Amino acid sequence: MDTASIRSMIEQLRGKRIAMVNKDFLLTWEKTLEEIEATFLVADILRAMREQNMSPRVFDSGIAVSNFRDNSTRTRFSFASACNLLGLYVQDLDEGKSQIAHGETVRETANMISFLTEAIGIRDDMYLGEGDKYQREVAHALDDGVAANVLPSRPVIVNLQSDIDHPTQSMADFLHLVHYFGGLEALKGKKIAMSWAYSPSYGKPLSVPQGVIGLASRFGMDIVLAHPKGYDLIPEVVEMTKKQAIASGGNFSYTDSMDEAFKDADIVYPKSWAPYDVMLRRVPLLHAGDKDGLRELEKEALANNARFKDWECTEEKMKLTKNGKALYMHCLPADITDVSCEAGEVAASVFDRYRDHTYREASYKPYIIAAMILLGKFGKPADLLESIVACATSRIFGR
Amino acid sequence: MDTASIRSMIEQLRGKRIAMVNKDFLLTWEKTLEEIEATFLVADILRAMREQNMSPRVFDSGIAVSNFRDNSTRTRFSFASACNLLGLYVQDLDEGKSQIAHGETVRETANMISFLTEAIGIRDDMYLGEGDKYQREVAHALDDGVAANVLPSRPVIVNLQSDIDHPTQSMADFLHLVHYFGGLEALKGKKIAMSWAYSPSYGKPLSVPQGVIGLASRFGMDIVLAHPKGYDLIPEVVEMTKKQAIASGGNFSYTDSMDEAFKDADIVYPKSWAPYDVMLRRVPLLHAGDKDGLRELEKEALANNARFKDWECTEEKMKLTKNGKALYMHCLPADITDVSCEAGEVAASVFDRYRDHTYREASYKPYIIAAMILLGKFGKPADLLESIVACATSRIFGR
Amino acid sequence: MDTASIRSMIEQLRGKRIAMVNKDFLLTWEKTLEEIEATFLVADILRAMREQNMSPRVFDSGIAVSNFRDNSTRTRFSFASACNLLGLYVQDLDEGKSQIAHGETVRETANMISFLTEAIGIRDDMYLGEGDKYQREVAHALDDGVAANVLPSRPVIVNLQSDIDHPTQSMADFLHLVHYFGGLEALKGKKIAMSWAYSPSYGKPLSVPQGVIGLASRFGMDIVLAHPKGYDLIPEVVEMTKKQAIASGGNFSYTDSMDEAFKDADIVYPKSWAPYDVMLRRVPLLHAGDKDGLRELEKEALANNARFKDWECTEEKMKLTKNGKALYMHCLPADITDVSCEAGEVAASVFDRYRDHTYREASYKPYIIAAMILLGKFGKPADLLESIVACATSRIFGR
Repeated sequence: MDTASIRSMIEQLRGKRIAMVNKDFLLTWEKTLEEIEATFLVADILRAMREQNMSPRVFDSGIAVSNFRDNSTRTRFSFASACNLLGLYVQDLDEGKSQIAHGETVRETANMISFLTEAIGIRDDMYLGEGDKYQREVAHALDDGVAANVLPSRPVIVNLQSDIDHPTQSMADFLHLVHYFGGLEALKGKKIAMSWAYSPSYGKPLSVPQGVIGLASRFGMDIVLAHPKGYDLIPEVVEMTKKQAIASGGNFSYTDSMDEAFKDADIVYPKSWAPYDVMLRRVPLLHAGDKDGLRELEKEALANNARFKDWECTEEKMKLTKNGKALYMHCLPADITDVSCEAGEVAASVFDRYRDHTYREASYKPYIIAAMILLGKFGKPADLLESIVACATSRIFGR
Repeated sequence: MDTASIRSMIEQLRGKRIAMVNKDFLLTWEKTLEEIEATFLVADILRAMREQNMSPRVFDSGIAVSNFRDNSTRTRFSFASACNLLGLYVQDLDEGKSQIAHGETVRETANMISFLTEAIGIRDDMYLGEGDKYQREVAHALDDGVAANVLPSRPVIVNLQSDIDHPTQSMADFLHLVHYFGGLEALKGKKIAMSWAYSPSYGKPLSVPQGVIGLASRFGMDIVLAHPKGYDLIPEVVEMTKKQAIASGGNFSYTDSMDEAFKDADIVYPKSWAPYDVMLRRVPLLHAGDKDGLRELEKEALANNARFKDWECTEEKMKLTKNGKALYMHCLPADITDVSCEAGEVAASVFDRYRDHTYREASYKPYIIAAMILLGKFGKPADLLESIVACATSRIFGR
Repeated sequence: MDTASIRSMIEQLRGKRIAMVNKDFLLTWEKTLEEIEATFLVADILRAMREQNMSPRVFDSGIAVSNFRDNSTRTRFSFASACNLLGLYVQDLDEGKSQIAHGETVRETANMISFLTEAIGIRDDMYLGEGDKYQREVAHALDDGVAANVLPSRPVIVNLQSDIDHPTQSMADFLHLVHYFGGLEALKGKKIAMSWAYSPSYGKPLSVPQGVIGLASRFGMDIVLAHPKGYDLIPEVVEMTKKQAIASGGNFSYTDSMDEAFKDADIVYPKSWAPYDVMLRRVPLLHAGDKDGLRELEKEALANNARFKDWECTEEKMKLTKNGKALYMHCLPADITDVSCEAGEVAASVFDRYRDHTYREASYKPYIIAAMILLGKFGKPADLLESIVACATSRIFGR
């Protein structure tokens, strides 16, 4: 990448009709295709700038709030890296994991943490039916704060994983695909198998598979969703995906056979999740802090999982894919058979072959997050990025 | 606010005789009236600068230590925002909540954390008779460190709440009043009711009411302190307040009737606190980790509180105030009846009407803290601020 | 210190043949003498720059990861201060204390946290035989990440204390000696007594004494290691030290008498540690979380310690040293008799006399860490530092 390529990407960005400023990034399907493309472009530009020792530090000061209701080393680092790249200082908001605030508390806290805040990243994926709602409650509180002249500007909210979508993950996944296959156009017609896989743990959120199919269906891809009967995703998300797939000139189908899903696939994404119905039953138990009930549910769910140990991404299954060479994807960490567990989502030899690919896949996340923040804060991103190129401040002095 | 207004405020600041550099901000009554006014001015200037996208980042690097002996989301964010605005990186010092270090440990730790440190914010409000002492112990250790050539410069200590005063809160409260009533002069003669209010919790520190009356008494206000008999504040602070009130041309009185306090008040600050005597008895129990003793004391204190449930800021009580339109104030979070509890400090409808005011009141805190740090670190603040205006570095690039 | 002195030190640095870029700083004995000297020089230069209000902030953005497997206020602040001085934002990696990750997890985590990372500080001193190994495992994972084009650059690892060495401590200790005695040359022939001392706690790591003798033996010093029989250090480290001492024109001897060690010493470093053999037995117990076993071992170790309460740095023992005026050193916090414990490593009056010296000793650590990072990231440090002098950005604006 050289400066000319950066300028060329900026010109592409200039051509996109977008209305992202002062808007949150909560679900990819709330964004237009051009907005999705703009986000990819900005992420690529920011990455190229950093590679060329150009500093896109647009904030001389400013706070970014990270609000994690679940442990997360990777997303935490991605968010911190993105914010730091833009010049924001991350301040954690630790409200504790067990209790979800509502009403007055959310309204007040949202304002109290936002007097000098530019961006808020929220991860809230444990409670089905609540994570996305909570993010919108914060958003409304911020809107009120701006309207009441309490806040000098509207911090942009970035969904770092909700019960419905995981846009920073899926956008990173697809930016990886864009680079792997050579452009967004190249994804048209490609078959992607989003498949459930066996894991010895339970309660994994639905947002990754939902995010993947929700985004894949924008690009004319041939999506196959595969899972054992009963391991449903949120029905509304699947319905929406079908419609989007057709509208984009692609296809969406479901199968309860991993083999069928893998057949001739260009891309496979074998990943465990908990059944929708289990996630629903878990919510009141979590709220009540009912440890016995949770243990009971876990036991039942794991026993059910155990019936599907053959849902593993093995060498045999990989042979079913296009030329036996589908791209294996995972959001990491994967449950690797004989490595992280006795039986898991993927065979060690398969994972080993694709390890570097999965790492590269993850490497896009900080830039995706930075792009979401930048587009949420700046109405004329192409002009801004052009000014950064013109300014050419070194990220590392003396290089 | 435009640049001319900023310059005009800087000129006002230049006229103040102050000696704040290398001095800590522990109690407002240790500062002269001109120093208080200078702090308000600098806070307003910093806020105006940020609003005009002018970056007052005076430190290219430097550490600010936050030392919180009590949980605090709001003050933590205010401190982080203030430090970040000036260019300081916040490093938390977590010494654990239960044990208070003394002697050698304080002396050593104070120096060990200060080699590259510019400011230290300390919150220590749980132990009556100890919080302020601890802050002074740290201060002396830092003085020794500078004298012994161990430290290159003296970090300034900002009291983020002690057992005696809560100057960042009270200064923010009064900067809000300054803007609400149109200047510090306008506060002269205004009646402020600092009133105890019922809360279903106990052990709330005395520093907020003490800070409020301690500061109000500098401005010639008519202060009425109201609480049920037995809910005393620290006697020495009340005595000092009386003297200050008279010296400033104002008045101070006490009543055990909330109604009387509210009568014709321009400002009401209904807020719960624990009786002085309960706070005193609590200290040895906290030190001993005596859970049974603490439970017993809490039970007794709550039972006593329950006798005063009518100390609530209701619509009826608000009608007693000047034209029924006194400004309601609170340091937040408030115990709101039927919202955060069954019976609390304030009726929901009253709080609702003043919510945005209380949020704005809180919004001054980051700027107050930044002003305290700036004045503690720079001997010629007017010159410094003028240079910032002249330099005109954008806080947000490309705006 | 003025700019001319800084330039002169930069010229000295230019004369050193070093190959430190893209290399980790894990053990001082893996570095050449010129590299050790270069590190001292850069630390002194950075300190002088800061004292002259010159900002060596070479990173406009960038992440530094702190990975502490043990509590540490002092090293945490030193690391944060060093990173902040250079412009890096510290993000903590908290993997929990009990479990040490291996294999796939280390490999993956090392890459996931490093996409925009410049430096990684690791403290892992609890498990004998594992801390250094873990740091090297992370290093290999990073090498692989760079080779596979996953990482844009190689973050440099700084050992913030392992089971083998504590280079940021020992380098700070010796930079203090350099300034105290007036140059590295002045250390030649000086007698240093690295002595065990009694402490009422157990399980203190071996890395401090090992680090001290491992570094002292580079400078032609007369090293006496003293400890009661059975309180051995890692045998290989002691062997290496002997060889280094002889090669550098110095001497190394062992004694089981504190008095003998102190006799005519120029420098004494009385400090407790756990016997090698106890540390070894502790590892499987820690891994197993065997609380009973750990308690049993502690009891046995403390009973054994108690036989050596006379290993205390008293006034009488200090009288044995060169003119009774040896320099007392400690990494802090020290166990001070009648201050922090009933009987400890050092008498209160001795510690009191040398307190400021020990504080100054500690004050070098942030600059040592910053020097290690700078030398690990920049191939031409003299040119870089010269550019910083030429640029002359103020650390504090308006000074």
